[in-house]
Amino acid sequence: MADSDIRRVAVIGRFQPFHNGHLDLIRQILKESDEVVVVIGSAQLNYTFENPFTAGERVLMIRAALLEGGIDLSRIFIIPIVDEEDNALWFPKLVSMLPSFSALYSGNRLVATLASFHLEVKSPKFVNKKQFNGTNIRCKIMRGEKWHRLVSKSVFDMIHIIDGVNRLRTLAKHESLENDKMSDIDRTFSPSNKTT
Amino acid sequence: MADSDIRRVAVIGRFQPFHNGHLDLIRQILKESDEVVVVIGSAQLNYTFENPFTAGERVLMIRAALLEGGIDLSRIFIIPIVDEEDNALWFPKLVSMLPSFSALYSGNRLVATLASFHLEVKSPKFVNKKQFNGTNIRCKIMRGEKWHRLVSKSVFDMIHIIDGVNRLRTLAKHESLENDKMSDIDRTFSPSNKTT
Amino acid sequence: MADSDIRRVAVIGRFQPFHNGHLDLIRQILKESDEVVVVIGSAQLNYTFENPFTAGERVLMIRAALLEGGIDLSRIFIIPIVDEEDNALWFPKLVSMLPSFSALYSGNRLVATLASFHLEVKSPKFVNKKQFNGTNIRCKIMRGEKWHRLVSKSVFDMIHIIDGVNRLRTLAKHESLENDKMSDIDRTFSPSNKTT
Amino acid sequence: MADSDIRRVAVIGRFQPFHNGHLDLIRQILKESDEVVVVIGSAQLNYTFENPFTAGERVLMIRAALLEGGIDLSRIFIIPIVDEEDNALWFPKLVSMLPSFSALYSGNRLVATLASFHLEVKSPKFVNKKQFNGTNIRCKIMRGEKWHRLVSKSVFDMIHIIDGVNRLRTLAKHESLENDKMSDIDRTFSPSNKTT
Amino acid sequence: MADSDIRRVAVIGRFQPFHNGHLDLIRQILKESDEVVVVIGSAQLNYTFENPFTAGERVLMIRAALLEGGIDLSRIFIIPIVDEEDNALWFPKLVSMLPSFSALYSGNRLVATLASFHLEVKSPKFVNKKQFNGTNIRCKIMRGEKWHRLVSKSVFDMIHIIDGVNRLRTLAKHESLENDKMSDIDRTFSPSNKTT
Amino acid sequence: MADSDIRRVAVIGRFQPFHNGHLDLIRQILKESDEVVVVIGSAQLNYTFENPFTAGERVLMIRAALLEGGIDLSRIFIIPIVDEEDNALWFPKLVSMLPSFSALYSGNRLVATLASFHLEVKSPKFVNKKQFNGTNIRCKIMRGEKWHRLVSKSVFDMIHIIDGVNRLRTLAKHESLENDKMSDIDRTFSPSNKTT
Repeated sequence: MADSDIRRVAVIGRFQPFHNGHLDLIRQILKESDEVVVVIGSAQLNYTFENPFTAGERVLMIRAALLEGGIDLSRIFIIPIVDEEDNALWFPKLVSMLPSFSALYSGNRLVATLASFHLEVKSPKFVNKKQFNGTNIRCKIMRGEKWHRLVSKSVFDMIHIIDGVNRLRTLAKHESLENDKMSDIDRTFSPSNKTT
Repeated sequence: MADSDIRRVAVIGRFQPFHNGHLDLIRQILKESDEVVVVIGSAQLNYTFENPFTAGERVLMIRAALLEGGIDLSRIFIIPIVDEEDNALWFPKLVSMLPSFSALYSGNRLVATLASFHLEVKSPKFVNKKQFNGTNIRCKIMRGEKWHRLVSKSVFDMIHIIDGVNRLRTLAKHESLENDKMSDIDRTFSPSNKTT
Repeated sequence: MADSDIRRVAVIGRFQPFHNGHLDLIRQILKESDEVVVVIGSAQLNYTFENPFTAGERVLMIRAALLEGGIDLSRIFIIPIVDEEDNALWFPKLVSMLPSFSALYSGNRLVATLASFHLEVKSPKFVNKKQFNGTNIRCKIMRGEKWHRLVSKSVFDMIHIIDGVNRLRTLAKHESLENDKMSDIDRTFSPSNKTT
Repeated sequence: MADSDIRRVAVIGRFQPFHNGHLDLIRQILKESDEVVVVIGSAQLNYTFENPFTAGERVLMIRAALLEGGIDLSRIFIIPIVDEEDNALWFPKLVSMLPSFSALYSGNRLVATLASFHLEVKSPKFVNKKQFNGTNIRCKIMRGEKWHRLVSKSVFDMIHIIDGVNRLRTLAKHESLENDKMSDIDRTFSPSNKTT
Repeated sequence: MADSDIRRVAVIGRFQPFHNGHLDLIRQILKESDEVVVVIGSAQLNYTFENPFTAGERVLMIRAALLEGGIDLSRIFIIPIVDEEDNALWFPKLVSMLPSFSALYSGNRLVATLASFHLEVKSPKFVNKKQFNGTNIRCKIMRGEKWHRLVSKSVFDMIHIIDGVNRLRTLAKHESLENDKMSDIDRTFSPSNKTT
Repeated sequence: MADSDIRRVAVIGRFQPFHNGHLDLIRQILKESDEVVVVIGSAQLNYTFENPFTAGERVLMIRAALLEGGIDLSRIFIIPIVDEEDNALWFPKLVSMLPSFSALYSGNRLVATLASFHLEVKSPKFVNKKQFNGTNIRCKIMRGEKWHRLVSKSVFDMIHIIDGVNRLRTLAKHESLENDKMSDIDRTFSPSNKTT
């Protein structure tokens, strides 16, 4: 099959972490497409409460979850992308960094606006968005609530192996201290003031 | 007339959008100067609620409004400038990117501080600042209130031609969803996390 | 003494401004170490209320305060470092830009996490953190309260010589206007929208 | 006339300096188009032998030469653009920073390749390219040969006013010393090693 | 099998294009390792004679060649990485962007030096390096010589589908003109002067 | 003595490595000035033949050589600065990053041009430039010739401790291979193509 006959679709997220809502979305897309490009956004961010995991860790989580879910990896690309401040360059940057694709799945209005100048944008159907979303999961991890049903077992295991639970709690405490502005000494010693 | 005899004055804004307060300011300056350099700040930002229009769109709006206002374009320069994180480099960057100028109009205290080390800074006189300001106009556009008297007809028309009203509404919804943090799936798919 | 026999320790802050808590910390470290590398973080930021002083001004303040405090400058390095968005690269960047060091003093949890992969991290003991912290001092300067006991005399004098009190007040007014969003004209003319 | 009815064409150069070949090209384009966007490439480069003039100086030269040539400035835009390392993003960056345009004039093969994915690319007709080219003119200036017939009088005058002849000679000597590698002390003190 | 039990090895190249020498190397590594991370260096470069293909095109070529070669994709990661000017940060950047890895294959002395501070570096055995190298292949393509035996059939086909032969010839002509410095008009219109 | 009464002078180099010509220059300046700011240029470059040592290593060398030379460190600042592509911003960047200074020593014509717009530029007197220059010393190290008389004993020792002789030889071989273009496989694996 020539590459031009392949229907390849991109889906974009930060995947902090990759959860069952993401997995379900990829399954949906694979029903209607030959291949999926999973784009890891904000690849340069890590070790913040919003973005606790490195791009490399996220690549590994996504691959493991797809394997565990029985998805054929020969139909999948996983590509980390660093942010671009000029929104008008965001879509062209995808074109430069990704295998050619003919559609984009996104429920995000801005993404839909920017990409719809160039190609088809489809809306994903999410089930139970309140549970299956990254902020909710990071908060549950931080608070010691149950979260293992929201992600693949392999994601759950990997987060434990890299000591991700403690990492998230450390980052949460660090950033709440920063917001207090009551503890400038701590702030003073922050590595990347810009992101906090 | 040699270039050194010309009184050339810079005026700086984001012009999101260019409105009648800006136009009036340029008229004021042209009474006391030969030429005006209109500097479009934050040129790299676009497709956010704070900065909905690209640098190119803003260049076009400003030019059209000045023409409509009967201003002689041979006395005008319009130069887009991308942001510089080091404030101490901001004025030298203007010097590198702009035709030489001998004064700056600004009601902004920080600009006045940074520029006054180098040249004369004058305070503009604004009439009815509450109406004639970009935030007010963007909010009116978003809410469907009347705003056509706040800008030149050519700016009004251009915003409609580029579907700017819908763009602003989409961006406003997008960013309020982000701030909710209740909708991580949407956040997850945001192209430039940094700016939101 | 060969360089490898020297115990050299890094300590990191923004030093906006350098105060007696910082000075005390450096004294503590010098009791247990041969040399201290004082790292000025966010070196590219200046002329904001959070970061009012340039890297050069901070270098000068720190040196003057250490001299005034009778500290032997042959045991001190002062190195400005610009921010790095990728937190995972923060420690390697220190390694590239600093003389080799074998320990880091920091009460900051994120710094401790990032550096502890690589070397020993020690917790400083701060006395009276509520008084001796940069935010507190900048607020006192802005409000016209007494702050001369919180910093070295040479820091106090230098801030006056560079007209730092007025600078801080101008920046505070500028940024509170920005946060109001009631004064778009002022915002419009801001040099670095990103940092405000 | 609505903006969509206007035929607007972009032309790109470094304009080091703007010469009569450039002027002639703009005249050609204005015969077939309503408006021309003159894009100043490599806007961030200056004070090198290849790029002696700042973006601001080039804006001024171009404007003065067009005025001298009797060209109606209401049909002209002059926009400086900084380089972009990812060639695939070059054309999208023009789209972000420029007023919308429907064709591009360029005799350059790479530009033609990159832009032809998006819009019409036309080949300019140059007369006497050996004379009317920037390298030739910079070399003549450096060597003290005659060059006043190759540029507009206003460009010639402006280069003298900003002491451009001496600037070019200084830069030429500086860079030939660098290439010698016989004078490391001089090299050592070079401000931007990357560009030399 | 826990992730920590997996032997994962990185191999780095620009892959302009991916050829049979690269394929053979990956086969070698897979004999001694569980998984290979194929790192596409200089991901931000494209449309130059040295770097004709975009990162996205290279991802696609590599994947297709591995599939054609019967390699199990569940053992492969393909990650594009943009350059980093500070060589001392190069290896830490790999750590941030890649799944964890315990060895690196490279015949390159600088890579060996930089990586050997951190982990095991092994030397690949290349057969017939003079034939199987990117410069040789790009030159053959440009000159119209036979090159189909040097790459996988899927790479050969893909280069034809994206019109890569003409692209290479255009780039070669463009850059030789630039080096001539006889054709400033052409140079003048080059999009990214820095890379040429 | 108030800071404004101090005569502080800047001197700029890459210091790859710091040699006796540099040391002699600093001695000269200290005869006429109170304090010297030693600016380490191209701080972001390292592990190339032109720039073998990291900024941190250079800081250490310079400090050690000054101490060995009996120079009072309380009269010295050592500040690493990363390059700036826009030459017109180079001097303002010094102003942002350095303690205030009133003169600059440089034999470099471009530096003299750029700085003379702002302050006094003085020409250093170098003795035996052919011997005391970085390129000459790096070549001698690479070729195994004698070089110990060209640098301070502490610089000589430090280069040996960090295995600098082998580092230089590795880099020289690496870069000559690159220039050959005969060994694409090696090139392929180069970490920062831009700098080679």
